[in-house]
Amino acid sequence: MSPLVSVLTSGRQIAADVGELLSDLLVREDIPLNLYCGRRGVCGKCFVEVLSGDVPPTDERERTLAKARNLDAGRFRLACRISIRGDLTIRVPDAALIPKTRILAQGTGKEVLLDPTVKKISVRPRRPDLHSPHALLEGLKAGLGLPGLRLSPEALYSAAAALSGSPDEEPTVTAVLGSGDELRGVERGDTSSRLFGLALDLGTTTLAADLVDLGTGAVIETAVGLNGQASFGADVVSRISSAFKDPVQAAALRNAVLESINALLSELQTAAGIRPDEIYETVVAGNTAMSHFFLGLPVDGLAVAPFAGVFCIAPPLPADRSGLRVNPLGRVYLAPNLQSFVGGDITAGVTATDLPSRPGTVLFLDLGTNGELVLKTNRGMTSTSTAAGPAFEGMSISCGLPAQTGAIDKAVLEKNGEIVVRTIGGGPARGVCGTGLVDLIAAFLRRGDLSPDGRVLRPDKRLPVAPGVVLTPQDVREIQLAAAAVKTGMRMLLAAARLEVGDLDEILVAGAFGASLNVENAEAIGLLPRLPGRIEFVGNSSLEGARALLLSGRERLRAEGLARIILHLPLARDAAFERIFVDSLSFREWPEDPALTETPKEDQ
Amino acid sequence: MSPLVSVLTSGRQIAADVGELLSDLLVREDIPLNLYCGRRGVCGKCFVEVLSGDVPPTDERERTLAKARNLDAGRFRLACRISIRGDLTIRVPDAALIPKTRILAQGTGKEVLLDPTVKKISVRPRRPDLHSPHALLEGLKAGLGLPGLRLSPEALYSAAAALSGSPDEEPTVTAVLGSGDELRGVERGDTSSRLFGLALDLGTTTLAADLVDLGTGAVIETAVGLNGQASFGADVVSRISSAFKDPVQAAALRNAVLESINALLSELQTAAGIRPDEIYETVVAGNTAMSHFFLGLPVDGLAVAPFAGVFCIAPPLPADRSGLRVNPLGRVYLAPNLQSFVGGDITAGVTATDLPSRPGTVLFLDLGTNGELVLKTNRGMTSTSTAAGPAFEGMSISCGLPAQTGAIDKAVLEKNGEIVVRTIGGGPARGVCGTGLVDLIAAFLRRGDLSPDGRVLRPDKRLPVAPGVVLTPQDVREIQLAAAAVKTGMRMLLAAARLEVGDLDEILVAGAFGASLNVENAEAIGLLPRLPGRIEFVGNSSLEGARALLLSGRERLRAEGLARIILHLPLARDAAFERIFVDSLSFREWPEDPALTETPKEDQ
Repeated sequence: MSPLVSVLTSGRQIAADVGELLSDLLVREDIPLNLYCGRRGVCGKCFVEVLSGDVPPTDERERTLAKARNLDAGRFRLACRISIRGDLTIRVPDAALIPKTRILAQGTGKEVLLDPTVKKISVRPRRPDLHSPHALLEGLKAGLGLPGLRLSPEALYSAAAALSGSPDEEPTVTAVLGSGDELRGVERGDTSSRLFGLALDLGTTTLAADLVDLGTGAVIETAVGLNGQASFGADVVSRISSAFKDPVQAAALRNAVLESINALLSELQTAAGIRPDEIYETVVAGNTAMSHFFLGLPVDGLAVAPFAGVFCIAPPLPADRSGLRVNPLGRVYLAPNLQSFVGGDITAGVTATDLPSRPGTVLFLDLGTNGELVLKTNRGMTSTSTAAGPAFEGMSISCGLPAQTGAIDKAVLEKNGEIVVRTIGGGPARGVCGTGLVDLIAAFLRRGDLSPDGRVLRPDKRLPVAPGVVLTPQDVREIQLAAAAVKTGMRMLLAAARLEVGDLDEILVAGAFGASLNVENAEAIGLLPRLPGRIEFVGNSSLEGARALLLSGRERLRAEGLARIILHLPLARDAAFERIFVDSLSFREWPEDPALTETPKEDQ
Repeated sequence: MSPLVSVLTSGRQIAADVGELLSDLLVREDIPLNLYCGRRGVCGKCFVEVLSGDVPPTDERERTLAKARNLDAGRFRLACRISIRGDLTIRVPDAALIPKTRILAQGTGKEVLLDPTVKKISVRPRRPDLHSPHALLEGLKAGLGLPGLRLSPEALYSAAAALSGSPDEEPTVTAVLGSGDELRGVERGDTSSRLFGLALDLGTTTLAADLVDLGTGAVIETAVGLNGQASFGADVVSRISSAFKDPVQAAALRNAVLESINALLSELQTAAGIRPDEIYETVVAGNTAMSHFFLGLPVDGLAVAPFAGVFCIAPPLPADRSGLRVNPLGRVYLAPNLQSFVGGDITAGVTATDLPSRPGTVLFLDLGTNGELVLKTNRGMTSTSTAAGPAFEGMSISCGLPAQTGAIDKAVLEKNGEIVVRTIGGGPARGVCGTGLVDLIAAFLRRGDLSPDGRVLRPDKRLPVAPGVVLTPQDVREIQLAAAAVKTGMRMLLAAARLEVGDLDEILVAGAFGASLNVENAEAIGLLPRLPGRIEFVGNSSLEGARALLLSGRERLRAEGLARIILHLPLARDAAFERIFVDSLSFREWPEDPALTETPKEDQ
């Protein structure tokens, strides 16, 4: 008869094979046991309480690990060291389970099991002696139980420095391990509780970063800052143009963004009280141009049709080549690009929202300089990119501002016909940001100052907003073009999938617009379709996705697979595109005329 | 019925499965078909002549490859593209086979099938267009048929530089591929015929290097030079001492050896008419200390007991970190060390002589500063290292010289009692090198100027050799100690294997001594046992082994496995060692007294 393992925590009784490892049994039963060191008995994370049953005796290493955790070495045993002989009753404490982290605080996100691509394991290497004058590295491998340890030359130098010393000492060192049994470095002493990672949303305008404890998955600090490249041009296209065939300018753009990131890093490190060399892993999610600038790759291909980048999946960059103030032995991973103009920020967003697994028909929409869209149906996913321009980031608008202090971010048309505005910070208005523009256009439409086709109906052709803040016909035109670009993208994606806008079960809106976007106004001007209850703001899904990619190697593999499974719909500048675009220029609700949304089908 | 494939060249008829690839069939039958690109139909090396039978039609790529080789595309077909449908008659031209290279010109070596760890394949990448704006790298992967291509950041930059350009061009580029589908770099144009490697014997005193065409396996130039580290100390131990806990001195030692290698490289490159960036692979075989110095690793562990190095198997070094004047995207591979004092030069020697596969009981002996020995029996291999000192390299001898112009390398005792010497180059004697010392000691012994226990019997206690060249009692003592160290190593190795010296079927002598060593004299002074016909000089087996490791990735895997299977016998300084060492100090032939060689067994 098979031995029975009773797991008190879950109430389960599981039939085991004689000789089977307890850890394997628990994993087979979907109990997320923390096998941090890969079942080598060296990390001490899978201690379970053995309440009854016959188990093999402990060894010295197991007793040392138990003692370090204040556990009774008689009762608490490493699940990865117990070969099952007969019936067992065990309890799996929470401390033995892999920590889970919820991605997307807004509640639409998924849970990620902590499975980072870098780990720290403290170990006492076997020392050479006269009878076994093995190399120091061989002693480390033996201590880690990793005979097949791989390493880079940098790791070799790090190991040499940490392991060299008086041969009489038998010091504890901490091995920093990457995935695939790769040694990244070795530190003296037990530093295993100090391992951090950085998740970065590298936006065209703003940067946002989370400093994460890779031992627990917890975010310990968050910071935002501006992308210093802005001085080279507000939008991506002008920066690409400035770097086109000009390596000096390209290098200057790279340096600008690195300086901005390093300033953010300093801020995070100071606030959290950690050292740069405690950060071993960084994930950067940015659009294709930003990731090319960050790596210092030529953007020439992105400047002219057919707009081809150099890479979709970049190799992880050794941190000492990245220019970031983190541990030089660390790695920097770029969220993979899906296509030349659908970048890693979108891959991160798709990851954070778990788009591939969501039920029904879902549109993911990132409103930035480019409006990037991914439509998920039951038959697959398709992405496209629209040149929305930077209007919704407050750029190219005479009184436009990013969402910062002094920017009008809300506007309401009162019953008395007066437009009341709110500024970020509450002080006097200095300009208008994206959400404010949407509110204002809707208000002016409702008040009759603006026609649905975008003409300013006031005699002076000006739309006053607040003292010193006014919208011009040109500003209106910019917003009209931006909204039409996004709307055209949505309509063409839906048409290609032979769907109506009403078929959408969900629209997930990511990007610069936060919860402060007034959905009704966005619907009123036609930026979003009128689908009550089906529109959800997911916030900075690029940053959240970067965090998922930081916490879990499995999520990286999935993200890298997205480029293969998400089809791309190029918005070719043909007659069908032109017609839909011109039609989409009107500030009006949709769907209002079902015939219109069907139009593209005939043109396929 | 199975289709039959008749191979004209071999006269074989082979039963095939329908749908089987012709290339797979030929490989299965041990025909060493050159599948350079891994059966992806892009390298054009496996063209076979189809004389009859039904084969699938050619495609454009195959026709282009045939045309480039002046082959009739109707008759000559890529074996890796032919899925077998029915009976076939084919001829496999020699050009379709993997080139073979014989290692060790002396005839004791083995044949190595060309299987380098770096390859060049020229390809026309698929260009992006408006309907498929894929990244440039994706186009390269498609062109190579390698969707899983891996790459380092350096390779990404190289690819970006070579692939960027006007999107209208469709240029040929050459991909430089490492093992495991790893992209090392990309060059513009078709440079596939220009791929070279360097095999280097990094000796304590001298350097020797082969420049090898990695397309054919042929050695195109050879050069020798001196190790510039000599100014820091003639022998390894003094250099280790000078670098001990002194990073500045360690760096100076590294620079000295790099300068010497780069001088050799310049010489080779000029002589062969190749550019540094055409060398993509380098193999360095040196003793443990030399490989540590070369990598710039601390040698502190090698300075004091238990004499532990940092590594046995070092990761291949990116060439841009190596300090060598070769292509920065290349790699530098170090022949693995077996133990802290049995280095990569010995691994290379074991590889070159194919020691593990030799029949019978074989002793491999490298006579350098350390006498390193590997004993191969039918039960396995054991290595040891003896501190022979640098006497046989002409060091620590008052009139000692390396084997260079002016050094006495041969001496003969004439019947008239006169000792006649020969110098390298034929000019006046400036000193004596290792082989000359052996001859002289034997001559002085025979003439009665020296007693077997090493006393100088002439009244003036001096042994005149030539005008201005004389051996002192101290010189004799140095030679006595060096020979005794080697002899002790041999005796203890044999004793541990419970073998007599007479059980040896072969002694392979590598190292500084070449064919100019007079075996009878070496036997007369007891440096080598008297085993007529069983002693073979294998020359610079370190260099030859480095070449085998350069030509074949499989040989590297085997060499890396040696460290696991070759046991190490530490020559502990115990009573047994002392007794054998003292006994071995006599200049006398062995085996002369079988009882002596049995002694150590009792002490085990």
